[in-house]
Amino acid sequence: MTTQDILRAARAVCPVLRCADREQKDAALLAMADRLWSEREQILAANAQDLEAASTHISGVMLDRLALTEDRIAGMADGVRQVAQLPDPVGRALRTVERPNGLVIRKISVPMGVVAIIYESRPNVTSDAAALALKSGNACVLRGGKEAFRSANAITEAIRGGLEQAGFPRELVSLIQDTTRQSAHELMTASGLVDLLIPRGGAGLIRACVENATVPCIETGTGICHVYVDVQADMDMALNIIENAKASRPSVCNAAEVCLVHSAAAEQFLPRLRQRLTEDRAAAGLPPVELRLDQRAAGIIDGVPAGEAGFDTEYLDYILAVGVVDSVEEAAAHISAHSTGHSDAIVTADPDAAAYFAAMVDSAAVYWNASTRYTDGGEFGLGCEIGISTQKLHPRGPMGLEELCSYKYIITGSGQVR
Amino acid sequence: MTTQDILRAARAVCPVLRCADREQKDAALLAMADRLWSEREQILAANAQDLEAASTHISGVMLDRLALTEDRIAGMADGVRQVAQLPDPVGRALRTVERPNGLVIRKISVPMGVVAIIYESRPNVTSDAAALALKSGNACVLRGGKEAFRSANAITEAIRGGLEQAGFPRELVSLIQDTTRQSAHELMTASGLVDLLIPRGGAGLIRACVENATVPCIETGTGICHVYVDVQADMDMALNIIENAKASRPSVCNAAEVCLVHSAAAEQFLPRLRQRLTEDRAAAGLPPVELRLDQRAAGIIDGVPAGEAGFDTEYLDYILAVGVVDSVEEAAAHISAHSTGHSDAIVTADPDAAAYFAAMVDSAAVYWNASTRYTDGGEFGLGCEIGISTQKLHPRGPMGLEELCSYKYIITGSGQVR
Repeated sequence: MTTQDILRAARAVCPVLRCADREQKDAALLAMADRLWSEREQILAANAQDLEAASTHISGVMLDRLALTEDRIAGMADGVRQVAQLPDPVGRALRTVERPNGLVIRKISVPMGVVAIIYESRPNVTSDAAALALKSGNACVLRGGKEAFRSANAITEAIRGGLEQAGFPRELVSLIQDTTRQSAHELMTASGLVDLLIPRGGAGLIRACVENATVPCIETGTGICHVYVDVQADMDMALNIIENAKASRPSVCNAAEVCLVHSAAAEQFLPRLRQRLTEDRAAAGLPPVELRLDQRAAGIIDGVPAGEAGFDTEYLDYILAVGVVDSVEEAAAHISAHSTGHSDAIVTADPDAAAYFAAMVDSAAVYWNASTRYTDGGEFGLGCEIGISTQKLHPRGPMGLEELCSYKYIITGSGQVR
Repeated sequence: MTTQDILRAARAVCPVLRCADREQKDAALLAMADRLWSEREQILAANAQDLEAASTHISGVMLDRLALTEDRIAGMADGVRQVAQLPDPVGRALRTVERPNGLVIRKISVPMGVVAIIYESRPNVTSDAAALALKSGNACVLRGGKEAFRSANAITEAIRGGLEQAGFPRELVSLIQDTTRQSAHELMTASGLVDLLIPRGGAGLIRACVENATVPCIETGTGICHVYVDVQADMDMALNIIENAKASRPSVCNAAEVCLVHSAAAEQFLPRLRQRLTEDRAAAGLPPVELRLDQRAAGIIDGVPAGEAGFDTEYLDYILAVGVVDSVEEAAAHISAHSTGHSDAIVTADPDAAAYFAAMVDSAAVYWNASTRYTDGGEFGLGCEIGISTQKLHPRGPMGLEELCSYKYIITGSGQVR
């Protein structure tokens, strides 16, 4: 089937979900989870083929992302079961007004329709995305990376088996069989067939989608996240937060890339930061963090010069840019100029500085005295997420089930005319 | 100044509005309204030049859209004052959760930033858009049509005078001085400088924006709206609603273009519809409505054959396509295939048919026993609107002040790390 055929088939079946109730959708999710587990041998066999084909040309880290085990499949099935536990995001009355003329206007959450997801080599995205789409009443059309195609296809077949078993059409979840650029471009430009396009992956994929999409597209995930250490910061708290934000998982989008320090605290703080992120970590057998310094920071501690692009780079690695500023105003202005609008934090005991920072830093998540690593659907209490939106057109921030819904107005009258 | 310069200037000043409170914004709105009135002579003089230049090549209807009078300027000023009466949409706590780890996560409404609006020849859009943008905390960059440029420029100058008088920077409201396609294209592709692009105008303008925009863009306004007359409809109510939906103002997007009638009611209903929309209107001195019929309707009443495109045309005129269907299911399926997702109505006394129709018709506004003409910010109780979104990525339907805001999460901790 061509991409257009698959999209048309998805579009044809998505009305079934407009009327499906929570019990039916949850039953399908449980059947999908059971099938993932009962078909684990087929999935592992397909994954072994993917790994063998990829082993000649991708790195060890990438191979680890691609690899499945029984445990990982069990984890995927559990993830699908957890989505079944979450409340139904569809059909909620978001607002009801009765107008003076007697019209009753209800704003009701509804599915988007057909959601397309372009992703890369993590096979578990296949089942995560399918589960979130189904629960939010959407048909989904998936287009994964070439390296993971056989794995994604086996997972999709298991999921479609579960759908069928629960009485839903298989076409609610589809995987594009063509993994060339052509199919991605077809999804981006399928006006009238795709209600929402979500890219999940690296900056290049996201940029390609945002620049080429003529269908509604969510910009996700690039995170140049900042931690600003104010003059009134608790220094121990600041060290904990920066080490966590930078080094607990440097490859993810909510990891910090930049630390800004107030000049009145810098003489005292920067040597401790260096000690904590380099010597202490090395002594504990952890990867040390390389510091890339602006001129003022380089006057206080040793490190590599940050250079032109040093404060505009998503390192996704054990590298932290460090700069000195003279005020919370200067910190906020720096962040406005350099942040990707994902997650930025202030560490301070001063509520006025925190309030100013929260008002002026225009990012999806602004933290006061906590690590940027909390920007995550699960950590926000959404139960799950399909990505982190870094745009301001709704939805913004972690996209859980509610963010995968749109709304409509249902207006009840008794013959009113204008 | 180039388009880029104007956008950069707008971007530089928009942080001012992140901290502005309601009183400051409302004072600026009142000053803007006063200036519109006190500078009415300059505005009328500019408008006279526009009218003279346009009179050689645009129609009477278009000239009327373009023309300003003292009354119309007073109306524009009143519109701005009404926006001052509306509640502040910025800074609302949309949700607050406290997580088990002690983090307090608040979801707060915030301005979008820089909103660009591309519109055509109605001069009043200039002041409407500026007022809505200011109240919602946004800087706005306006790009109007060539025919109305002098009028829009005079209005913008008055507004900027009011801003300055209230202590705000003039750059919060700007009019692009170049009215060629080039400037529109620059706005559509100003990634990083435009947070939201809103086209207001005809289908061609909207399509150009949606297809070419690399900045977040709202699809607005095209309305192929349906009224379905069910077998259990009150026939008098149905006639009232259809005449109102079609003929009270046929040039607007919430006017109906298509009437579908249940086959069991058609023999009785269609002759009355024809009588009401043609003979009765002509007798009352009103423009009669031309009926364009499908085959089954043509077997019952006289009219022009609808032809291939007859059910896919936004006539914006005294023309109504009329078709016969066998059930509410067939009506909903027809609407799914042909509606632009704006506003569709069912007339019926049967609550089950109404519930089915409301669930299955995936349009921004679905009416039961009321005219589609109510899809409007004022009629919905939003106080005002900047357009009607026909897309499903939020916002959808009438876009009032709340829909001109985004949100951010503000997270307060006590040193939490993951």
